[in-house]
Amino acid sequence: MMPELDLAALHSRLVAAAPLIQNITNTVVQQFTANVLLAVGAAPAMIDHEADAAQFATVAQAVLVNLGTATNQQLLAADAAISAARQANKPWVLDPVGIGAADYRTARIRQVAGNAPTAVRGNASEIIALAGLGHGGRGVDATDEVEAALPAASRLARSTGGVVAVSGIRDAVVAVTGDRVRVARIRGGHALMARVIGTGCSLGAVTAAYLAVRRSGNGATLDADFEAVVAAHAHFARAGSVAASKAFGPGSYAVAFLDALHEIADADLAAADVTVEEQAFPEDRDPS
Amino acid sequence: MMPELDLAALHSRLVAAAPLIQNITNTVVQQFTANVLLAVGAAPAMIDHEADAAQFATVAQAVLVNLGTATNQQLLAADAAISAARQANKPWVLDPVGIGAADYRTARIRQVAGNAPTAVRGNASEIIALAGLGHGGRGVDATDEVEAALPAASRLARSTGGVVAVSGIRDAVVAVTGDRVRVARIRGGHALMARVIGTGCSLGAVTAAYLAVRRSGNGATLDADFEAVVAAHAHFARAGSVAASKAFGPGSYAVAFLDALHEIADADLAAADVTVEEQAFPEDRDPS
Amino acid sequence: MMPELDLAALHSRLVAAAPLIQNITNTVVQQFTANVLLAVGAAPAMIDHEADAAQFATVAQAVLVNLGTATNQQLLAADAAISAARQANKPWVLDPVGIGAADYRTARIRQVAGNAPTAVRGNASEIIALAGLGHGGRGVDATDEVEAALPAASRLARSTGGVVAVSGIRDAVVAVTGDRVRVARIRGGHALMARVIGTGCSLGAVTAAYLAVRRSGNGATLDADFEAVVAAHAHFARAGSVAASKAFGPGSYAVAFLDALHEIADADLAAADVTVEEQAFPEDRDPS
Repeated sequence: MMPELDLAALHSRLVAAAPLIQNITNTVVQQFTANVLLAVGAAPAMIDHEADAAQFATVAQAVLVNLGTATNQQLLAADAAISAARQANKPWVLDPVGIGAADYRTARIRQVAGNAPTAVRGNASEIIALAGLGHGGRGVDATDEVEAALPAASRLARSTGGVVAVSGIRDAVVAVTGDRVRVARIRGGHALMARVIGTGCSLGAVTAAYLAVRRSGNGATLDADFEAVVAAHAHFARAGSVAASKAFGPGSYAVAFLDALHEIADADLAAADVTVEEQAFPEDRDPS
Repeated sequence: MMPELDLAALHSRLVAAAPLIQNITNTVVQQFTANVLLAVGAAPAMIDHEADAAQFATVAQAVLVNLGTATNQQLLAADAAISAARQANKPWVLDPVGIGAADYRTARIRQVAGNAPTAVRGNASEIIALAGLGHGGRGVDATDEVEAALPAASRLARSTGGVVAVSGIRDAVVAVTGDRVRVARIRGGHALMARVIGTGCSLGAVTAAYLAVRRSGNGATLDADFEAVVAAHAHFARAGSVAASKAFGPGSYAVAFLDALHEIADADLAAADVTVEEQAFPEDRDPS
Repeated sequence: MMPELDLAALHSRLVAAAPLIQNITNTVVQQFTANVLLAVGAAPAMIDHEADAAQFATVAQAVLVNLGTATNQQLLAADAAISAARQANKPWVLDPVGIGAADYRTARIRQVAGNAPTAVRGNASEIIALAGLGHGGRGVDATDEVEAALPAASRLARSTGGVVAVSGIRDAVVAVTGDRVRVARIRGGHALMARVIGTGCSLGAVTAAYLAVRRSGNGATLDADFEAVVAAHAHFARAGSVAASKAFGPGSYAVAFLDALHEIADADLAAADVTVEEQAFPEDRDPS
């Protein structure tokens, strides 16, 4: 039996707790990611020097790792922060942005993915590539559909032991227990979201924020983490829809999206278009 | 006889092709550049690790190099990407931002400029400095006028063998064949454009995008490249004018500019204020 | 007797002079900082390569140092620029963002703070941490109040010999001469300011811009520097209030804030809510 999701309660806790999130992320989206975290009520910190990253991971409540423009220094920082977060039992989120675009980044992303990320969030191409079932996309585009990526997401969820989220027109969040796969599908957003850089990358940061508050005061369970990842996606989906009604193009959409992230109320998360189902682990539908 | 420019057709091809552009560019403008590329319909990727830059340059359809805040790693990445792009016959664009501001950057920008950039785009001071006829500006300001920079632009176009664009109140795009100089002048934009960081730097990226689609399926000719660079500038000039009617200051101007870049139609490019003339190579009007 | 502040005149000089500001600052806020400087009429340059930083510091009119995401290269650049600025008698501003968050950054920020910054600007936690009277905040939050930080600000002002500014609901600017402490308090802004990344960091850059114009053509005095730092804070406070009337959330607030920074007139600075008082150096109220 599947536990009920209480997204409204989780949003309420996020706003009350203002969790501190360490972001080791690419320079293209750092500003937007920080603004997104501030808009939802979290506190961003971009501590990514290799001498400080591990220490700060024990202070922050969750860590986001996105190696989109990682320098050698930032790669060392990511390794250190991940190791420290795991030791301190803090959640960490991997965004495998751009995996498959070139060999070195692909190898490095695979390497960090071996450290049991609490959640992985990417577009369909990236999830398929990280699962080892495809070659990745071109840049940050999603050239595969979310549904086609579900077998890959399930495999990845099994191998990491964590939650896997696939972003697209309709997002999917996946967790695997034994031979059962739980899949949440979240509708919302708008086509303009894909015309604003960082809407995907910052969702990884908000996922980390929800994981942080969901875990605080509770033990870490896969059910709890699943709920947190769904909440983050529901928050984005709702804000993405609200923003569309106020936008004239990608510039005004980005502005309206930040406003909407901030004004979302608990009830909006409760009213988000989220469905959850369980299915068998897709051994037989291996797309490779 | 000068070939007709068909900017509307080129815009149509850009939207249809969504070319993937590799941006090795400064951290100040990475977000805005990515948003500008997304707004015009292109796909941005900021792959700038030295281990990946060359490989990705063979996947991307064009490369932008802007060394505004280049680290030692990014400098190596630029060298690698340029070399790979040339070998694969992909267009690459140089933005010599801040040349002349300090010695090391000046030397490094000159060095990469020796690799036959398909197009160079800068403000008047930067073009004069890169041509070796002046000392460059202070920061990103254009302290020289566009017309005064035309002799420098012509020399630079001859020495690189490519197209040279000078940004200002009225932009100029220059190509040299033998002792003939073709000059396109593009009017549009607005004074607030100079109060938004990255409006110049992102034009370099859009120039790369138009070069990519202009070349696809055709051989590379100087005429074709010239047309592509003019199209990019016309796109910006039109959007810059449209944005002015919706702005209250530099903040709202930047937002309206992204909206306008996105909503520009083929017919807008056909209606852009562009004039083209041919003149003799300006040996006798050497300003040095 | 305290000299009168003439903030309107200083604003007028800023717009006329368009000072060139070298920003060695964190990648999260580089774009916003550049846009803020452009909005107030200054010229930004982010020259932060260690080979160029010192040379450019002799060209720029002031230097901002903010080590929020400093790489090893940027740390070397900061050291070089500070040294060159001091030798050339140019003002430099330190933003100790994130001091106390982790050991290495704390040590490095303390190290550069030993080079007589013309002004230090931070939130209450950061000023207390830099003064050695507390442990710093979590990320960029201000968990201490401005008034509680005044003893720390006074000590820091004495030890650096410069001006110290504490940002918060009501900003305070402090200078110490002998056993007298001059304190300016500036009201304005809005709660949404804290939900936009870079509003604090960019204030450091504008502080550098006002210092640059206040000093040009005059000798450097602590009184003059104090006036410049107050002017920067008054400019932000006024713009922050104006922006609030046009914002629906943090996204539109950031846009309106840039517009407001640009449209502020001399008279607005004259009308800013600024009070100045003198008090004894707070030896007896040491909070440690």
